[in-house]
Amino acid sequence: MIPKSHPRYESLLLRDKMVKASKEGYLADSALIAHGRGEAFDYLIGEKTTYPAKRAMYVAVAALLLSNNPVISVNGNATALAIDEIIEFANAINAKIEINLFYKTNERVKIITKLYEDHGYRNILGGLDDDIEYINDIENNRASASKNGIYTADTILIPLEDGDRAEILKKSGKNILTIDLNPLSRTSKMSDVSIMDNIVRAIPFMTQIANDLKTQDKKILVELVNEFDNEENLKESLEQIKVKE
Amino acid sequence: MIPKSHPRYESLLLRDKMVKASKEGYLADSALIAHGRGEAFDYLIGEKTTYPAKRAMYVAVAALLLSNNPVISVNGNATALAIDEIIEFANAINAKIEINLFYKTNERVKIITKLYEDHGYRNILGGLDDDIEYINDIENNRASASKNGIYTADTILIPLEDGDRAEILKKSGKNILTIDLNPLSRTSKMSDVSIMDNIVRAIPFMTQIANDLKTQDKKILVELVNEFDNEENLKESLEQIKVKE
Repeated sequence: MIPKSHPRYESLLLRDKMVKASKEGYLADSALIAHGRGEAFDYLIGEKTTYPAKRAMYVAVAALLLSNNPVISVNGNATALAIDEIIEFANAINAKIEINLFYKTNERVKIITKLYEDHGYRNILGGLDDDIEYINDIENNRASASKNGIYTADTILIPLEDGDRAEILKKSGKNILTIDLNPLSRTSKMSDVSIMDNIVRAIPFMTQIANDLKTQDKKILVELVNEFDNEENLKESLEQIKVKE
Repeated sequence: MIPKSHPRYESLLLRDKMVKASKEGYLADSALIAHGRGEAFDYLIGEKTTYPAKRAMYVAVAALLLSNNPVISVNGNATALAIDEIIEFANAINAKIEINLFYKTNERVKIITKLYEDHGYRNILGGLDDDIEYINDIENNRASASKNGIYTADTILIPLEDGDRAEILKKSGKNILTIDLNPLSRTSKMSDVSIMDNIVRAIPFMTQIANDLKTQDKKILVELVNEFDNEENLKESLEQIKVKE
């Protein structure tokens, strides 16, 4: 048990969640390394949600609310860190959740499917008996997608996503939103909206934003999306990384 | 196999080494997370050895050459990344190598001991049949040390070391040198000489430095050590972290 008084309490708690998930067998081999990279970037932004991240979240939520078939793509890391928060957000914006594993094994898909069921979510896509199609006919896990989910989706939230996979999705013409602590990652650079934040802070905040924006006129959401410049926002996100003693 | 042409080839190679070590069972649970943090910091310094790191290496090597009982402390991560380089360096400076695991299990000690033997190094300290003492009578793995190694050492190189353990060693009055990509870590801040670099670049470079410095007068080594200001050098190390597109 980590004492709540520990100065690194929140960070150590997430680390424990990741180690536990690794032992439960549903993470990719290098998933913990990816988490460590995120930890370092989070540390460098002071482990706080920055203003550019918040701005990107408003835009992402507006885009999801405006879309016809929004999907949240989840992998092992996202599930380990924020399963309940993801389910709550999906319900708030009426989006589907789809399991998408870059290093896909039936075993990992099975464990993650069961986790969502155990946490009260019954309609998960991307499970073992789902209809899988390949985007642009690329027969590779980079391009696999549920027929009723990502394959036909117009807007996809891909938190903590691999760069190769993000590239395929982007090239397919879909609207891509990501949550990624590394503003220099290929996924961040390739997405239409890049939220540089820790998923455990971002998702609950996005649920709050959704509850606000749902009460607003559609034209306000359209404005939010149209006025956003991701390249500029990424630049401002980068400037939030402060290296000091 | 990672193609040599891959822009992230070196980094992916190290990642593979870590994943392999993890599967072989000699890493701590959160070892991969620590590696990921290092990856992020290395990325931010351009994956190159910086000038302040080189300066610190000269001082560290001089301190090791001047000491009566120098010891290199190794854990799972250091072993996975640079076992041959560590052995070569230990031989070059006539230092002992000691296994020191913060999350110690007999199984992990056994595997690591065998690895050093398999790589041609027979005198490893900290093995299962070694005499273990506790620094300042703290009966905890943070403070365990080989009687003929760290317990009686005057200068210790502790690459990739846990902050709690670094603190105990520092408090015991020993001269502490570290290699740590995070200049903000407790280990970096607590050490007498902190080398902000990737261990796979640092150790071979330190072997070269040792071969140079061994030919020099002792007073030159003393000067190197005396003129060094670790706090200042850490500040300059921090300034090497460049956040830009």
